[in-house]
Amino acid sequence: MTHATGYAALSADSAMAPFSFTRRALRANDVRVDIRYCGVCHSDLHQARNDWHNSLYPCVPGHEIIGQVTEIGADVTRFEVGDMAAIGCLVDSCMECSECTRGQEQYCARRATPTYNGKDRTDGSPTFGGYSNHIVVREHFVLKLPDGLNPERAAPLLCAGITTWSPLRHWRVGPGSRVAVAGLGGLGHMGVKLAVGLGAEVTVVTTSPSKADDALALGAHKVLISSDKDAMKGAARSFDMVLDTIPVAHDVGPYLMLLAPRGVHVVVGAIDMIPSFHGGLLVGGQKSVAGSAIGGLPETQEMLDFCAANNILPDTETIAIQDINHAFERMEKSDVKYRFVIDMASLGDEN
Amino acid sequence: MTHATGYAALSADSAMAPFSFTRRALRANDVRVDIRYCGVCHSDLHQARNDWHNSLYPCVPGHEIIGQVTEIGADVTRFEVGDMAAIGCLVDSCMECSECTRGQEQYCARRATPTYNGKDRTDGSPTFGGYSNHIVVREHFVLKLPDGLNPERAAPLLCAGITTWSPLRHWRVGPGSRVAVAGLGGLGHMGVKLAVGLGAEVTVVTTSPSKADDALALGAHKVLISSDKDAMKGAARSFDMVLDTIPVAHDVGPYLMLLAPRGVHVVVGAIDMIPSFHGGLLVGGQKSVAGSAIGGLPETQEMLDFCAANNILPDTETIAIQDINHAFERMEKSDVKYRFVIDMASLGDEN
Repeated sequence: MTHATGYAALSADSAMAPFSFTRRALRANDVRVDIRYCGVCHSDLHQARNDWHNSLYPCVPGHEIIGQVTEIGADVTRFEVGDMAAIGCLVDSCMECSECTRGQEQYCARRATPTYNGKDRTDGSPTFGGYSNHIVVREHFVLKLPDGLNPERAAPLLCAGITTWSPLRHWRVGPGSRVAVAGLGGLGHMGVKLAVGLGAEVTVVTTSPSKADDALALGAHKVLISSDKDAMKGAARSFDMVLDTIPVAHDVGPYLMLLAPRGVHVVVGAIDMIPSFHGGLLVGGQKSVAGSAIGGLPETQEMLDFCAANNILPDTETIAIQDINHAFERMEKSDVKYRFVIDMASLGDEN
Repeated sequence: MTHATGYAALSADSAMAPFSFTRRALRANDVRVDIRYCGVCHSDLHQARNDWHNSLYPCVPGHEIIGQVTEIGADVTRFEVGDMAAIGCLVDSCMECSECTRGQEQYCARRATPTYNGKDRTDGSPTFGGYSNHIVVREHFVLKLPDGLNPERAAPLLCAGITTWSPLRHWRVGPGSRVAVAGLGGLGHMGVKLAVGLGAEVTVVTTSPSKADDALALGAHKVLISSDKDAMKGAARSFDMVLDTIPVAHDVGPYLMLLAPRGVHVVVGAIDMIPSFHGGLLVGGQKSVAGSAIGGLPETQEMLDFCAANNILPDTETIAIQDINHAFERMEKSDVKYRFVIDMASLGDEN
């Protein structure tokens, strides 16, 4: 075991505060990564505050991790000391079920192990995330950071990036596709960049006229204001996909009207109740309401490589770990464009 | 114009009764079909009674039509007098929009013209359905009845058949697919036969243990009783598709649990509100809730040809047109295995 330092919530009511703990000694298939940057995801805040009623304390959040390999287990073959690496939302899974063997570890029949708020499959110890100076992870769940991908800005790709990438790829978005991105936050801004990168025509659908310029600056081709009933009516039947990144429960009906026949509305933002809607909205065009969760390891690597090749990066604001409580407050007010990234060098000053 | 006879509802409260009316004179691209058999669909009853609050009276129902060509317009090329033909739920559409040109006329951007309760696109006259001695239909909307397909039993293929065929094909059901058919009525029994014909492993999910033997007799490989919580739990994550033919609004949650990752729940039975359900049921496996409406003309012909080649026919009970009110009553009690077909020769005795 090695001594680690980081920031944790000690209870649902406590602010994030410095925390010392231990990481396990390396197993034969483990990689130790010294963390350079960690993105700040809405899930971090939800978990720290027990919004989902399943938090384990102390809670060290963080699942958008970029760092450097400092040690490898005896059986590790894909990494060498000094390699830049990335770790996302998962650190283990059964590796035997049909989902794991097809590279969709996030849907593991025996439940994948989350990077934080989980329990180690071998010894049952709690998993602690990336708001810390290093992490020890099974090699299969460590990704390669491609050359040329800015390590500081790449971090949010590990959650916000793959969460939008996986549905875009699964439903075969490409040149000729018409994609509406609903909501323009951490997920939405990545949805825009990735869908544009894949060659789609991209429209941002937002309640806020103030976000129109931002949407176009991110690369969106059009903006649709969802409160403008005439504009919404005029856009009926014109999208192959609505990528729904809205973070709260909401009526999907108006978005189903936007879909062309065979179109799909994919929920990736709010894991919450979907209010009742009329089935005729689906039946009258072989349409679907779907959902999607992060992505498997192979597609996460594919996404990182795609972003490196196409110079796609999240828009980020770098903070020190000492600023995390303030960052949580700003994130709650959507006062960030579009993702905070913790420079973990700041932790060294404190511990 | 030619004199026609049939049965109609004259108001929402009236029983079906003999009715005389006219059919239009043939246009250049029209085919006249003398009706031999007409299936009795739940929609017929709903429309006759104004359950959908949009009925036009007098209402001559019937959109599962089998007959013989007796006259063709000057520009008709695909039919000759004497051919056996079939007509389903649509008799016209714009033929210009992207849906019509791809053969998905049921999703016509300008709304396809229904076989009854619609208005003719040329002269605005009401459309009257197949509970009658003949019909005049634009050639494009007339299907060929393949040799070897029993005309009396084939009628329900035109609605119940294509309604289940289209989603099975769209979502690529075939050998290796695991399909659950929820509900075992007119639609459900065709869903079983067609999915089995396509090579899928088919399970009937029903509330009624009494239907288990019927399901197996129809070719289903397994039966799952939806009230048996242990059985439902044991079947979790084991289907690629749930074909939902249940005719009333209901919670889809328990069925979403049955789906494997990437599975789709397709609503074809109840065009009604879908009660609120938790989005996590979709997100946790890239699953979908979809809907589907009948099918386009090319896929309807494909389905008829498939049924002829594979000896697939609905289970039917033949009635005289004079029995239609009693048949409606029995249909409301699900007292039919599985579809009534009117022998239109019975009409000749009356008019």
